[in-house]
Amino acid sequence: MYRTLQEECYEANMQLPRLGLVLFTFGNVSAVDREQGVFAIKPSGVSYDILTPNDIVICDYDARVVAGTLRPSSDTKTHALLYKTWSDIGGITHTHSTHAVAWAQAGLDIPIFGTTHADHTHHDIPCAPVLTDAMIEGDYEHETGNQIFDVFREKGLSHTEVEMVLLQNHGPFTWGKTAEKSVYNAAVLEEVARMAYLTLQINPNTARIKDTLRNKHYQRKHGTNAYYGQGC
Amino acid sequence: MYRTLQEECYEANMQLPRLGLVLFTFGNVSAVDREQGVFAIKPSGVSYDILTPNDIVICDYDARVVAGTLRPSSDTKTHALLYKTWSDIGGITHTHSTHAVAWAQAGLDIPIFGTTHADHTHHDIPCAPVLTDAMIEGDYEHETGNQIFDVFREKGLSHTEVEMVLLQNHGPFTWGKTAEKSVYNAAVLEEVARMAYLTLQINPNTARIKDTLRNKHYQRKHGTNAYYGQGC
Amino acid sequence: MYRTLQEECYEANMQLPRLGLVLFTFGNVSAVDREQGVFAIKPSGVSYDILTPNDIVICDYDARVVAGTLRPSSDTKTHALLYKTWSDIGGITHTHSTHAVAWAQAGLDIPIFGTTHADHTHHDIPCAPVLTDAMIEGDYEHETGNQIFDVFREKGLSHTEVEMVLLQNHGPFTWGKTAEKSVYNAAVLEEVARMAYLTLQINPNTARIKDTLRNKHYQRKHGTNAYYGQGC
Amino acid sequence: MYRTLQEECYEANMQLPRLGLVLFTFGNVSAVDREQGVFAIKPSGVSYDILTPNDIVICDYDARVVAGTLRPSSDTKTHALLYKTWSDIGGITHTHSTHAVAWAQAGLDIPIFGTTHADHTHHDIPCAPVLTDAMIEGDYEHETGNQIFDVFREKGLSHTEVEMVLLQNHGPFTWGKTAEKSVYNAAVLEEVARMAYLTLQINPNTARIKDTLRNKHYQRKHGTNAYYGQGC
Repeated sequence: MYRTLQEECYEANMQLPRLGLVLFTFGNVSAVDREQGVFAIKPSGVSYDILTPNDIVICDYDARVVAGTLRPSSDTKTHALLYKTWSDIGGITHTHSTHAVAWAQAGLDIPIFGTTHADHTHHDIPCAPVLTDAMIEGDYEHETGNQIFDVFREKGLSHTEVEMVLLQNHGPFTWGKTAEKSVYNAAVLEEVARMAYLTLQINPNTARIKDTLRNKHYQRKHGTNAYYGQGC
Repeated sequence: MYRTLQEECYEANMQLPRLGLVLFTFGNVSAVDREQGVFAIKPSGVSYDILTPNDIVICDYDARVVAGTLRPSSDTKTHALLYKTWSDIGGITHTHSTHAVAWAQAGLDIPIFGTTHADHTHHDIPCAPVLTDAMIEGDYEHETGNQIFDVFREKGLSHTEVEMVLLQNHGPFTWGKTAEKSVYNAAVLEEVARMAYLTLQINPNTARIKDTLRNKHYQRKHGTNAYYGQGC
Repeated sequence: MYRTLQEECYEANMQLPRLGLVLFTFGNVSAVDREQGVFAIKPSGVSYDILTPNDIVICDYDARVVAGTLRPSSDTKTHALLYKTWSDIGGITHTHSTHAVAWAQAGLDIPIFGTTHADHTHHDIPCAPVLTDAMIEGDYEHETGNQIFDVFREKGLSHTEVEMVLLQNHGPFTWGKTAEKSVYNAAVLEEVARMAYLTLQINPNTARIKDTLRNKHYQRKHGTNAYYGQGC
Repeated sequence: MYRTLQEECYEANMQLPRLGLVLFTFGNVSAVDREQGVFAIKPSGVSYDILTPNDIVICDYDARVVAGTLRPSSDTKTHALLYKTWSDIGGITHTHSTHAVAWAQAGLDIPIFGTTHADHTHHDIPCAPVLTDAMIEGDYEHETGNQIFDVFREKGLSHTEVEMVLLQNHGPFTWGKTAEKSVYNAAVLEEVARMAYLTLQINPNTARIKDTLRNKHYQRKHGTNAYYGQGC
């Protein structure tokens, strides 16, 4: 019944070790089926070496397990709330990739310094502040979702234009129209985080990319007259 | 007689090059058999390319060779004293992994900046000060074990909560319930060391993770109500 | 008709992932056929995993598609103008390789610190300033070519002696007598960029290599009495 | 006649790409036959992908080609002078490995910060100052050998205790009893250079390892009562 969804989720998860984005089990990807109103997610703490499509757990938007014998990712409630709130996303990825985590631990937004960044979004990558004690001691993973919504609201960002966020002292979440796209965004974020770090080491006074160039690169890939890619 | 123990030790040692934690022979793993009162350890200076289970040396808790034709690791006395003193550990790993060594050479504890660190322990990773001249010129590898006990005593740490330590000007030792778990901890330590280094490069004024978040992540993985993993 | 050119271009493009110079589709290589007055270039946004020689697009020096069913790289006009203007180059490579991009984002020329750099050129690697708003909002990729010519003119550089450039806030372009040589130059640039970054981290006051040593290494490889390589 | 020597040299050269110490052809290894008074060295500019034992060139101690159809490495005269002067070395390696070059470009000795370094030598790794103009414009590669002897004389170092050196603005040379050992030393140097760089990034005021620990580690591996390795 959920076989196709499980396989989509499994394939996207298996990209994480191939892209060098996870050590051991430090990451998870989910994929949603909007018609059935459920999402598939990696089981908690299961090694990528032994993971199979059959291990993938099916949950509803309130994070209740609908199918599967294993316990879902400990971050499942964050995924659930994001799917429930943002009805146009199809997949979510969470990693502890090295440079993205370093920025999250440093508690700083990743400044938009170049076209590698602007090709994917035209804003700094936001770093959501650490949750309040009440949020952490309450329904932590659910509140993590709320913290993401808050930082997008405060900064006036659209989640379809900025498909990535850092959680302070934690790490990145990325999303997209499909699970595969959310993994792609996780890899882009890690590379952009690494480039921004190196840029500031070389020149601590580096200014952000100017607006015209930022818009040009974003629009040539995402605008109505986009001419990057094969248009399909 | 010791075949199973040798194989456990061999498999754990072979993880070191796969995880990128050793150059040439700069590392060793041991595994203990509490019933027989012996531990198995890598022979000294033997390349991972040619190592076989049969080469693994068996020693008692006073570091005397019980079985095997090769000379055991030059760090054998440190392993022996740790097994003798901490009766609940099952394996020990020593590496010269790059970022862990850099912190050890810098002589600094690794501050706890994020959840990647807090998922595994809720303290800074301690750096034991360099041994006194008397300790170095005396029974050096045995005293290395004592130096580890001293830093845990002084800082009031439990070796079951903090399964890793740096030795100043030298490098890391990690342990765990099994040899495999001690290797896992060695890889986690290297990644945490790398993330902490990058974090301070990005923001030299980074503060430690706050207590509530630190405890939340440690407890969801290790507490009585842990919900990370499959509970087995 | 263009099969040989397509294959040359395809092979050169496939070197980019092998050399670790691209993430996903962030790069492209072209190869020119001077007799036919056309060049072959990677199609836009096509993954290296599925790219075939048949996908390679053929364009003229005004960036018009001459053969091929796919849309050419979004950077095609830059390639076209370089081929049109510099009649002695045979191939062009554009990447977003990490350290070259970091220097480009920092907006700085890469200083010539050592013989690894001098073996390939005896000048700093120039960083062309970010384009004016008019250039960006006009024919952007065409003007990128003009910006490259401008920085070479202003600094009095020869494009046959310096086969590489950084575009501020963007990344590197390299070229050479063949497409393969332009890829080689892209890899050299990335390594020189990484070495220069590390050098300044170790010693922020590092001076450039002195003229005699710089000339010695360049001449022993490129001069009339060159004795590096097999002279063929 | 020189087949065994060619194969020894070939095998040692092929270790360079496996150990990540070379990009393209930026490195060379030689191996000496003291009985025949000749050494084997990599041909200049030949890719490791196509190198065969038969391509290895045989030279005498005055760098004259004795056998082989290809041109030997452009650094051959440096190798020749080292073999002629240091009659107890059996192999020499030259690379442009990234972190060793960064220290050479920075013009600084690599301080001895830890036991990874002390396991191999008990001194800072010396950086020979850049050659005088007369030396560079004269017999450059021959004078490079003289510059190495000079820095060892000035610092009172023994080439059997310190089997590695940096040439300012250039890169490292390493040697050893065999070609294989010289490659081993090249890999150790690169790792020690990387660790020292990271150490100073973490703590710019890091002091050198103290004498007792430095001597302990050097002696347990190289002293008359050494107990590291299998004693063969």
